[in-house]
Amino acid sequence: TIIHLFKEIFKAGLELQEKDHSKELLVSRKRKQEDTIININGDLFGDGLPHFVCGPCAVESYEQVAQVAEQIKNKGLKIIRGGAFKPRTSPYDFQGLGFEGLEILKKVADEYGLAVVSEIVSPADMEKAAEYLDVIQIGARNMQNFEILKAAGELNKPIILKRGMSATVSDFINAAEYINSKGNGQIILCERGIRTYETSTRNTLDITAVPILKQETHLPVMVDVTHSTGRRDLLIPAAKAAIAIGADGIMAEVHPDPAVALSDAQQQMDFAQFDQFMEQLQIK
Amino acid sequence: TIIHLFKEIFKAGLELQEKDHSKELLVSRKRKQEDTIININGDLFGDGLPHFVCGPCAVESYEQVAQVAEQIKNKGLKIIRGGAFKPRTSPYDFQGLGFEGLEILKKVADEYGLAVVSEIVSPADMEKAAEYLDVIQIGARNMQNFEILKAAGELNKPIILKRGMSATVSDFINAAEYINSKGNGQIILCERGIRTYETSTRNTLDITAVPILKQETHLPVMVDVTHSTGRRDLLIPAAKAAIAIGADGIMAEVHPDPAVALSDAQQQMDFAQFDQFMEQLQIK
Amino acid sequence: TIIHLFKEIFKAGLELQEKDHSKELLVSRKRKQEDTIININGDLFGDGLPHFVCGPCAVESYEQVAQVAEQIKNKGLKIIRGGAFKPRTSPYDFQGLGFEGLEILKKVADEYGLAVVSEIVSPADMEKAAEYLDVIQIGARNMQNFEILKAAGELNKPIILKRGMSATVSDFINAAEYINSKGNGQIILCERGIRTYETSTRNTLDITAVPILKQETHLPVMVDVTHSTGRRDLLIPAAKAAIAIGADGIMAEVHPDPAVALSDAQQQMDFAQFDQFMEQLQIK
Amino acid sequence: TIIHLFKEIFKAGLELQEKDHSKELLVSRKRKQEDTIININGDLFGDGLPHFVCGPCAVESYEQVAQVAEQIKNKGLKIIRGGAFKPRTSPYDFQGLGFEGLEILKKVADEYGLAVVSEIVSPADMEKAAEYLDVIQIGARNMQNFEILKAAGELNKPIILKRGMSATVSDFINAAEYINSKGNGQIILCERGIRTYETSTRNTLDITAVPILKQETHLPVMVDVTHSTGRRDLLIPAAKAAIAIGADGIMAEVHPDPAVALSDAQQQMDFAQFDQFMEQLQIK
Repeated sequence: TIIHLFKEIFKAGLELQEKDHSKELLVSRKRKQEDTIININGDLFGDGLPHFVCGPCAVESYEQVAQVAEQIKNKGLKIIRGGAFKPRTSPYDFQGLGFEGLEILKKVADEYGLAVVSEIVSPADMEKAAEYLDVIQIGARNMQNFEILKAAGELNKPIILKRGMSATVSDFINAAEYINSKGNGQIILCERGIRTYETSTRNTLDITAVPILKQETHLPVMVDVTHSTGRRDLLIPAAKAAIAIGADGIMAEVHPDPAVALSDAQQQMDFAQFDQFMEQLQIK
Repeated sequence: TIIHLFKEIFKAGLELQEKDHSKELLVSRKRKQEDTIININGDLFGDGLPHFVCGPCAVESYEQVAQVAEQIKNKGLKIIRGGAFKPRTSPYDFQGLGFEGLEILKKVADEYGLAVVSEIVSPADMEKAAEYLDVIQIGARNMQNFEILKAAGELNKPIILKRGMSATVSDFINAAEYINSKGNGQIILCERGIRTYETSTRNTLDITAVPILKQETHLPVMVDVTHSTGRRDLLIPAAKAAIAIGADGIMAEVHPDPAVALSDAQQQMDFAQFDQFMEQLQIK
Repeated sequence: TIIHLFKEIFKAGLELQEKDHSKELLVSRKRKQEDTIININGDLFGDGLPHFVCGPCAVESYEQVAQVAEQIKNKGLKIIRGGAFKPRTSPYDFQGLGFEGLEILKKVADEYGLAVVSEIVSPADMEKAAEYLDVIQIGARNMQNFEILKAAGELNKPIILKRGMSATVSDFINAAEYINSKGNGQIILCERGIRTYETSTRNTLDITAVPILKQETHLPVMVDVTHSTGRRDLLIPAAKAAIAIGADGIMAEVHPDPAVALSDAQQQMDFAQFDQFMEQLQIK
Repeated sequence: TIIHLFKEIFKAGLELQEKDHSKELLVSRKRKQEDTIININGDLFGDGLPHFVCGPCAVESYEQVAQVAEQIKNKGLKIIRGGAFKPRTSPYDFQGLGFEGLEILKKVADEYGLAVVSEIVSPADMEKAAEYLDVIQIGARNMQNFEILKAAGELNKPIILKRGMSATVSDFINAAEYINSKGNGQIILCERGIRTYETSTRNTLDITAVPILKQETHLPVMVDVTHSTGRRDLLIPAAKAAIAIGADGIMAEVHPDPAVALSDAQQQMDFAQFDQFMEQLQIK
């Protein structure tokens, strides 16, 4: 047992080293005490108030995006999102309009004075895409696509990094560190639900990941209420919970006519629902 | 393919039957539109306001329970909880004081004018236990112990039914139906976190189960913030999220001196933390 | 950091204590090196060969059980299983014939010279049930129903203990310890699949749990291929894998006419499939 | 209810369409009845016999790889694997030698007459890497990195596609379809464990995925026993189960001196263990 004790002392030493290592992560709260605040078109993510990133799942046409942009503008919001490169489970599903979609997004955003968020799925497209976009989104399926993380780290643009479907909080923080380690510290973490046995929702919203991520890192944390729940009827309650627990932002999908949407028809809000959504979440 | 179609028609017929069946569940919102309201010592679970069920993980002594009761009383709360029969993973862990624990609980509750909640783990003890308790709790490990559910269904006491560690929402509703089918409709559902791969919390709080359960059933729904998170530092944010999403009640563990608690030392609040907890959750 | 080191030494001490504690478990391989061998009607579970426990999901009638018994007998097998007390998710599903079912089982078993296995779901029934049964099964939903574990521990009969749906290997071993701690060491552990996100099987068969359980404990370990897969077409491959990895027994459901079975119709074998099953698993 | 029935008929029509769609997948068994057989250096994956892909987790030096190659050669095996581009959770862990690693692998493989398997993590590297490699591996983290799948689809080289950590069987099949839809049908599916709540193994080996994948597709299916278990002591039992259930190949990691390995030290076999591994799996 004296041998055991020495082993344990050795192990303790190793653990101490590990802890020091974690202290050294650039994204860690231990490394930087103050909250990182990220300015997107005047919305300050990390200032203690919730900010909204809304828009259609996929960019389908100029008209579609413009209609949504008008609704967003009217509500006093400053950011629009839309998918141009769509990572889809089947190769035969609609894959998005690609750069044509980004052009539409940029045109509309300029007309309405909005900032644009869109997902990029290939490291090779990153630099060109950055010309169209104010914020680059990295999707759940690419959270451990380290090549894309490194490419994002070389940009000077805010990044929204979504949590992988079965990523631990620790995996998630390390993925953010990949971006930061290449020089780009403008990272917003986005909880979007994890895969569990439960089937009443598309994923299980891991709501307590929000305060944990805010404790462990100095980065803003947002919640994607659309992909976590996959149910239009849960968007408002999920967003309320997210705001109450301290989320810095909410992402939600809006479409002029969800029934004919080319992707994720069942989970996008129409404009009447969007009105109700923003009304009920208004901070008095 | 015409054969296929007929098969599908047959299947559709079966599904219709099943749907009708689900309509018939006594706990279903389809069966009864209005919210069930359960009165526990004047606290109306289901009235739209959050109510609190606090107390030590395990009953250890008269003094310990009395100290907690005083704190609860001073905050204007009306209910105390405490474990007398403790379901523990190992047979060598502290198993609770049993009926002696229930006696302590009852004595203290009477002195302080509080209602008492405690878990019962054996159908045979149910009736005797009901003499000491205002509310019977059925724990997560016993959510599909159908003998205990049936025994609870024969009482005329409110039941707090906790969700099993890997129970689906549908399993959970059916477990409640076991109780109701025996005649007792005074059931409060309690989300307490589900088992997932994530290890930064003890369980993963499935926060959207709250609005789903309230949609599917007419029963009050509460959230156990202690067992879902397993972390004292997450109790306040988790409770805020639970209240924001519409929970009818919050369960949380409080101990005069958590460091010496005989069970779950790391997740119980001390009195200073309890003050802060109630202060921050106060509805203005 | 010297303080840290002392803390770690203290922690190491605690961990050492815990390890010693695990050494002391009665079911642990550290406590008893040799394999426990359990004799059921001449089948020696733990002797290195696979043994079979087959029979209908639920006892429906004397004729049904007798037909299955004849098939079992003809194949040279020595044990029959059948459910008399059926733990069912919904209170409106067939709950089994109860003691009448046990009587049928015993009558048939005596006529055919077979041993009988059946699940008991209430501690109060345990003693009476033991008069009818050669082996008591404790089901997945009751793996942490500690009252039933303790009641099983007071019998002098072999117990088949099924793993809970989301029980860790460590939870499972502790559940067995509950039985052993009350004096009954004749325990066969039964892996029956765990709950995961995957939906192509009813549960996910955790096949490596078999060698882990055999390493950690001295108890025989069997695999329920019916409930783990929930698919008749996977019974043979799953059983082959189980035998290859060292399982001491296989449990599988057989019914004279699965299409009209009162429970689990889709996963039971008919007699032709049962012939094929035993043929393909024959050890040459 | 007549309206309901028509709705269901409509739904049934939709489902039939979906089923037809699934029939059309290039990788589907419905599309092509016969097994696809893939020839790697004379090893025919899909011929009904198990084949072996062994080698170090990461390429560290010429000497290290050559030592392993000699062992592999001596056992009559024909393939070596080694990681040159290592996807690591933390940006500060050893990331592999990159193309220098591929050069070492190719040099050694040529000397020993072995085929080489290595993982590629960037679509941009795919073509260049194909010059060094006989088989391209796509790792679990990149299973839904659709850019890399498409790039792999444009090569004329066998691809080993690993299942994502929380991919369903259906997601996995669709990922293979991405490759096949671009023209490359030489795909070997590799089960490598899925993420669950169980912590006694690194992942949970989903052994029944093997027969399901072989039923649903015409592709060879292998099992990575190293990453699924993460435990050296489980490699032999896991491999036995995989072979028994019909796997076409086994992947396992071997290192001259695991204790000093730059990655995954605890799960690689040393040479003595490798001898024992091959001996025990020898098909008589």
